[in-house]
Amino acid sequence: MRTMTTPPGPAPAPVRRDAEATKAAILKAARHLLARHAHADITLKAVAERAGVSPPLILKYFGNKDALFARVMSFDTDADDLLDAPLDDLGRHMVRHVVSSQRERGADPLLRIAFAPLHGDHGEVLRANFRTQVTERLAARLTGPDAGLRAELAVAALVGLGVMYGIARGPHLRGTDADALADRYGPAVQTQLTPGR
Amino acid sequence: MRTMTTPPGPAPAPVRRDAEATKAAILKAARHLLARHAHADITLKAVAERAGVSPPLILKYFGNKDALFARVMSFDTDADDLLDAPLDDLGRHMVRHVVSSQRERGADPLLRIAFAPLHGDHGEVLRANFRTQVTERLAARLTGPDAGLRAELAVAALVGLGVMYGIARGPHLRGTDADALADRYGPAVQTQLTPGR
Repeated sequence: MRTMTTPPGPAPAPVRRDAEATKAAILKAARHLLARHAHADITLKAVAERAGVSPPLILKYFGNKDALFARVMSFDTDADDLLDAPLDDLGRHMVRHVVSSQRERGADPLLRIAFAPLHGDHGEVLRANFRTQVTERLAARLTGPDAGLRAELAVAALVGLGVMYGIARGPHLRGTDADALADRYGPAVQTQLTPGR
Repeated sequence: MRTMTTPPGPAPAPVRRDAEATKAAILKAARHLLARHAHADITLKAVAERAGVSPPLILKYFGNKDALFARVMSFDTDADDLLDAPLDDLGRHMVRHVVSSQRERGADPLLRIAFAPLHGDHGEVLRANFRTQVTERLAARLTGPDAGLRAELAVAALVGLGVMYGIARGPHLRGTDADALADRYGPAVQTQLTPGR
């Protein structure tokens, strides 16, 4: 009868949460190593050691090394959330999303592109993914001339917001709430999305 | 009488140009090492080796190691050019300046902040310099409420432009001329500088 005494609401799921935390640690370790070594030089063992897990656990969660690195270099999941708003409110939504990701996760859906190495495969893959998964995906939603350029400029404004927030750590930015920032900076993004409206 | 035969106009100055190239190589070497090692662990000898010069030459040009690193971590000279326009045209000017710096020098006056390490002294010095030498200096020129926040947002838009141009290498951005980009993106920067005008 012990299960009857469980309080109502979402069941606590310690195993699942552990799995999520472990996956996050593995991704973080892979990201750390990728920023410092060539893809080909990184072993699963090195990722496992850094994440404090066993290599078989990485295989269990991610399949193989290539699949793990594909995940680390993908912007797909991030872009799903970033772009999840009607076009007319997308500027404000994206600003809010960047700010709240920084605040809640200490990370940013787009900021990885700022760390893309200028040389080598890893940088090329990140750039290509960023282009197809973020800017071109946004461009495909825009109407009117120069959609590709406008999407790049809108994304530029968002990436810069992330740099100022997370790296330069602008004190005024960090002291202003997400809605106020969306009101102030959203229109500058929106003007690229729906110019003249 | 040889000097009389020199053609009119600016005298060619090969020695001076060599010195400039050497200084640039020294600064580049120091920047490279700083991105990878703690300030205290970097020797003048290591900088000299990487730059292909002798340690005494570094002393001749920069005085001492601290002065060299202060120069590497300063945004002062860059900000002089970046901010060199009347306030009413500053948005367009700054966009043009970022784009033409990227095109002509393959570098960006502001982009170093995107590479500031999140931990350690080097990152803290870069952040503090960026704040006093760029954002606060811009804020001091603004009138009206929230000048500090508006300056940070204007700079965010510019830093993002540099990331999209120089790191993400957006093909549309790179295929558009600086004036056209100033027309399209300048107003989004300007709206932070002189809102409501």
